[in-house]
Amino acid sequence: MTTGVRIILASRPVGEPKESDLRVEPMPVPVPAPGEMLLRTLWLSLDPYMRGRMSDAPSYAAPVQIGQVMEGRTVSEVIASNLDGYAPGDIVLSPSGWQTHAISQGKLTRKIDPSIAPISTALGVLGMPGMTAYTGLSEIGQPKAGETVVVSAASGAVGSLVGQIAKIKGARAVGIAGGPAKCRYVVDELGFDACVDHRASDLAEKLKAACPGGVDVYFENVGGAVFEAVFPLLNSFARVPVCGQIATYNATEWPAGELRVSKLTRDILTKRLTFRGFIVSDFAARQADFLRDVSTWLREGRIRYREDIVDGLEKAPRALIGLLRGENFGKLLVRVAAPGA
Amino acid sequence: MTTGVRIILASRPVGEPKESDLRVEPMPVPVPAPGEMLLRTLWLSLDPYMRGRMSDAPSYAAPVQIGQVMEGRTVSEVIASNLDGYAPGDIVLSPSGWQTHAISQGKLTRKIDPSIAPISTALGVLGMPGMTAYTGLSEIGQPKAGETVVVSAASGAVGSLVGQIAKIKGARAVGIAGGPAKCRYVVDELGFDACVDHRASDLAEKLKAACPGGVDVYFENVGGAVFEAVFPLLNSFARVPVCGQIATYNATEWPAGELRVSKLTRDILTKRLTFRGFIVSDFAARQADFLRDVSTWLREGRIRYREDIVDGLEKAPRALIGLLRGENFGKLLVRVAAPGA
Repeated sequence: MTTGVRIILASRPVGEPKESDLRVEPMPVPVPAPGEMLLRTLWLSLDPYMRGRMSDAPSYAAPVQIGQVMEGRTVSEVIASNLDGYAPGDIVLSPSGWQTHAISQGKLTRKIDPSIAPISTALGVLGMPGMTAYTGLSEIGQPKAGETVVVSAASGAVGSLVGQIAKIKGARAVGIAGGPAKCRYVVDELGFDACVDHRASDLAEKLKAACPGGVDVYFENVGGAVFEAVFPLLNSFARVPVCGQIATYNATEWPAGELRVSKLTRDILTKRLTFRGFIVSDFAARQADFLRDVSTWLREGRIRYREDIVDGLEKAPRALIGLLRGENFGKLLVRVAAPGA
Repeated sequence: MTTGVRIILASRPVGEPKESDLRVEPMPVPVPAPGEMLLRTLWLSLDPYMRGRMSDAPSYAAPVQIGQVMEGRTVSEVIASNLDGYAPGDIVLSPSGWQTHAISQGKLTRKIDPSIAPISTALGVLGMPGMTAYTGLSEIGQPKAGETVVVSAASGAVGSLVGQIAKIKGARAVGIAGGPAKCRYVVDELGFDACVDHRASDLAEKLKAACPGGVDVYFENVGGAVFEAVFPLLNSFARVPVCGQIATYNATEWPAGELRVSKLTRDILTKRLTFRGFIVSDFAARQADFLRDVSTWLREGRIRYREDIVDGLEKAPRALIGLLRGENFGKLLVRVAAPGA
């Protein structure tokens, strides 16, 4: 094989991305120089943060430039290696981006042990989303036994782990998810105490009924109307790790909402609330703790996860659009190739 | 003397309090029972939090009931004592409220040593406002040398100390105050690096010019338009201790403002901001540290303070109305009586 495929950012989306904002194109398979290796992508992770990289609004990371390959984490197989410590057949976590092949010098790359768990979990429950849930909850949310933890996007890669860890810590876990199927999954499969459908017209009332003792930790993935439904329920000294705002990622202007900034800041004062934004790299020092704890919980059957798999790299643009609409159900992955194929 | 004076809450204010919301009335001077002492009020502290106590909106403390004496901290003199450890002539800090005399069982009371500093400072720089500044800045703001600390209501009891402690910690201190006289005082007397007049039409621009490196800590006392001017200047990882919201205490509805909640929460995420509300009692464990450090700094001449003194308890209602308008200049105190008089 001498031809691969890559997907580049063709134009910056206005509002919801269109498939034409991303262009699928053939690429020559590169040849590794000394000190390099050639990787073949097996799995590409699709994550909400990617919408931010398509935009040039100020954020914590530089945007992808027009004409560049879209950024993304992959699980890849080493095809050829001129790099010490890596041999053909090795499976690695890599920032290869949206392409079938990539050259790597081993930077930001680590080997994956396929005996621990399916290799795709290095992009999900044992990867960036899992560590986001683990660190945001433990460092900022700090749930105590008997407290109530609410998490939005509860069936997703991050939210599903937040609630399960909250349960392990002895807290009550209440999810917010889109639609009855996801809500059933969150309660029946993941073991949350309750889950509320944010598409229901009476979200605020249902959430209040699901949180009779108020909310001590709100793990914020969504923003917008979901945030406004949770906010009045926050107890004194509640903690709000701000992890995502997916409801507004496609917005072309800031939604008005009912809640006023001045009401928000007043309640922060009178209820002594803590709001803190974070991204996973802020807590890089916790990686060993994360891998140890979550691998253990997985092995003990205390943690479950769900993958939503799309086959073929060329499906990635449509899948990302769906992710931002909440159409995925579980950790969204693109299966780019089978190992050893 | 067998007759004193007290001020009771006559009605709950709607918007700005009116003098008629508070009623000055004579009272019999009570006689202490066994285990009690009779206190005579020397100084009454007037503080912004009192507006909250006049309202029955939910807050961190129960409101004053209609017909009750208004709450407040006082510096008082022991007139008669049936309580071990207290003798006539002792000077005490007491929650006596807005009245010339009060019975105390010694609860929430502590003796003041007049040799350390003027006794009125137990209501200001060495009292609740001082400890509010000290704990909010050290526990939440955590300024590091070279960082920029902005504080609103900078000439007030809390703000003036926030900036001075920031300077002691090696940070740059920028105040926001109402009017040129207060701004001059903040820079010339208190030693802030800059001070911006929030009454100026171009507050946002002037503040930006005063903070060329952005803002690392915003000690929030005010809310409203002042908050909106500071918010865009916050640096990544900035900390915002939310201590007060005086701009909205008299508001009958939440001001609309320009800033959207969704923009606020997005920036909390992308800039990894921390917002945390507090009241001084949350950090009660720091009292010994506070008294040691601030007394030392006072003695060394590294901390200055300013008192705005009103003579006569009957002037307290008008003075509180002025405080909420920003008419005071320094820590607002009512001199109720002279010691030993």
